[in-house]
Amino acid sequence: MTDPHDFTRRLQKDNGSKIVFLVGDGLGGLPLTPGGKTELETAHTPNLDALARRGTLGLSTPVLPGIAPGSGPGHLGLFGYDPVKYQIGRGVLEALGIDFALGPNDVAIRGNFCTIDDAGRITDRRAGRIGTEIGSKLSAKLNEIKIPGVEVFVRAGEGYRTVLIFRGEGLGGDVGDTDPQKTGVPALDPVARSAGSEKTAAIAKEFLRQAKEVLKGDAPANFLTLRGIDKLPLIPPVKEVYGLRAAAIAVYPMYRGLARLVGMDILDAGHTLEDQLARLEASWNDYDFFFIHWKYTDSSGEDGNFALKVQRTEELDQFIPRITALNPEVIVVTGDHSTPSKMKSHSWHPVPTLLAADTCRFDGSTSFGEAQCLRGGLGQFEAKHLMLLTLAHAGRLEKYGA
Amino acid sequence: MTDPHDFTRRLQKDNGSKIVFLVGDGLGGLPLTPGGKTELETAHTPNLDALARRGTLGLSTPVLPGIAPGSGPGHLGLFGYDPVKYQIGRGVLEALGIDFALGPNDVAIRGNFCTIDDAGRITDRRAGRIGTEIGSKLSAKLNEIKIPGVEVFVRAGEGYRTVLIFRGEGLGGDVGDTDPQKTGVPALDPVARSAGSEKTAAIAKEFLRQAKEVLKGDAPANFLTLRGIDKLPLIPPVKEVYGLRAAAIAVYPMYRGLARLVGMDILDAGHTLEDQLARLEASWNDYDFFFIHWKYTDSSGEDGNFALKVQRTEELDQFIPRITALNPEVIVVTGDHSTPSKMKSHSWHPVPTLLAADTCRFDGSTSFGEAQCLRGGLGQFEAKHLMLLTLAHAGRLEKYGA
Repeated sequence: MTDPHDFTRRLQKDNGSKIVFLVGDGLGGLPLTPGGKTELETAHTPNLDALARRGTLGLSTPVLPGIAPGSGPGHLGLFGYDPVKYQIGRGVLEALGIDFALGPNDVAIRGNFCTIDDAGRITDRRAGRIGTEIGSKLSAKLNEIKIPGVEVFVRAGEGYRTVLIFRGEGLGGDVGDTDPQKTGVPALDPVARSAGSEKTAAIAKEFLRQAKEVLKGDAPANFLTLRGIDKLPLIPPVKEVYGLRAAAIAVYPMYRGLARLVGMDILDAGHTLEDQLARLEASWNDYDFFFIHWKYTDSSGEDGNFALKVQRTEELDQFIPRITALNPEVIVVTGDHSTPSKMKSHSWHPVPTLLAADTCRFDGSTSFGEAQCLRGGLGQFEAKHLMLLTLAHAGRLEKYGA
Repeated sequence: MTDPHDFTRRLQKDNGSKIVFLVGDGLGGLPLTPGGKTELETAHTPNLDALARRGTLGLSTPVLPGIAPGSGPGHLGLFGYDPVKYQIGRGVLEALGIDFALGPNDVAIRGNFCTIDDAGRITDRRAGRIGTEIGSKLSAKLNEIKIPGVEVFVRAGEGYRTVLIFRGEGLGGDVGDTDPQKTGVPALDPVARSAGSEKTAAIAKEFLRQAKEVLKGDAPANFLTLRGIDKLPLIPPVKEVYGLRAAAIAVYPMYRGLARLVGMDILDAGHTLEDQLARLEASWNDYDFFFIHWKYTDSSGEDGNFALKVQRTEELDQFIPRITALNPEVIVVTGDHSTPSKMKSHSWHPVPTLLAADTCRFDGSTSFGEAQCLRGGLGQFEAKHLMLLTLAHAGRLEKYGA
């Protein structure tokens, strides 16, 4: 397998050029009826269309044809990391999602509060779907648990979800789930699946023993199961693989976490478009690469709200004038995957992508939408190759071979 | 190399949806003159065109650009099996082609009757191209040969061809051909090319010793050479890799054999389109996936008969109304390779492919043909990825990664 980083490590050069990566989460869509327009095609996007006329369009395949990615593999691909080679566990993603700064000695775990009967059998795997308020109180109680030799952190997630972190030396991340995936049976014991994770399994077992005591009177949330036990993957930072000083402007914690995972600096900004643009302008001289994440194209798609996704796309269009005013060498507008409102979920459909730079070969595009991207000069390409194209257009790659 | 099955094993889910895979063998073609239409474009195919308008088109590359596949790799690719990873020996394919039910202890061999002179030198590598009738009688004589410790089966092929099967424990499949590929020299001895195949080589040698006696008086077919000595490849079944209950409706034995090789059930049906559709309808509730094989687009192409291939394509079109009436979630129409009548052979040209499902992104196609497939939303893709796309559109794949 050819790793793009084999090239970028050898060929990178720093010419001081600037790159802006504007990611509309779940940007790609579907028409509601055959022959109709997608959300992006329906949206009035004069600024993106102008950029399309001077840039090149294409369609990006996040992982493989037919594979709908989660946010993790979707973003890793955009950042040029092979999403098959680098995999992120559920526990790690949950920890990133609550802005917990995971370190290399941390094991992250997703916990689900559940209900058990007197015999210890699970009667409800989600504890009657308790609200976040109750879950937060119970997480705070569990956070008091002490286990010799490690630090234990328990943080509230949404509803019945919680996040555990064990911090210590010699903790492997290869431990099986304790959720039996059905009711009427007890939770499983945490079991190490490979050498080097026995200590983690023993600590998880002790944690669960104490948790059962702590939560005894808190029915329906009188116990919890553990899932997605994992450590941070070893991911080489963007500074090393691309030579880029990179920063992320993202409202939602998970996307900040994913950016941190590849070594980007996280720039705090408010929730509005105006906040994010102001932060971009204020930090312009400090970085070479800016990742700006726009969540709402995805969330409106997940809600199945075609009209709202159109509106959220039109808001994305409003980023463009102030970005172009900064005169970056390369502007990329794309998504981490498609989220057609028709499907109310992430999908595998290839993702509309726009790359604008002075070195673009004209492809006749007149507006930014799926149909024109299908005819675009970038063709259909693997998402992990987009960074190569970006660096090339930024003049940041030397010739390969003599 | 990323194996699609690494994904499908993890992500498969059974939602009860139905898939029909209609394969027109050798479907792709060429125009007879530059600027002309291909066979598929010339054919009047109103039903396929209607399907194209609500589906997505593309071009499938069976193996690699420029590689014209045989039926084995062509179909393995369509079924989602990497045709480079899974290779089928000539002997195995010949055995499948005569409907011989190969087992895991069988070594299959293609035999060619030949003519030898008194000194044992080959004077005609095809025994004057004897007819099938003579070949059948000789195969029956050879079928009487007994070798201690193994069972020997000899079955007639077409003309001067025959098929041998040695059945027994400890028989490897790695033995060299005995055909010297030229006349004026004796046949080679069978030689094991790796440890574990010595027993097979010894048995083949004993078989040839006896065969020379048996065929002594049968000139011009007074001996035979052995080629393509091989065993069944270990291929994981579709039920495991995709979670599909799959069935094949195919007239010709080789295609039934290829379907059996990947674990499909074989549904008997008569030779006509009507027979095959009736079988499909009768079995509709018993399977999730139906592979229907239409041979005549290939055979007419191999004959170099453009007009007949057009007609055979129009017959293929007649399958569509009764398939759509069954309301499967996904219909795929494609070929295992191209067989342009202009070339009278299999070719490497990418294969027109149509996928119709409610989750298709509109690509503006109005009819099913090579030129529109080139502009289609599926782009040009590797055949082995078609099953991923099919499963995705059928709602049979979970999201990859969190």
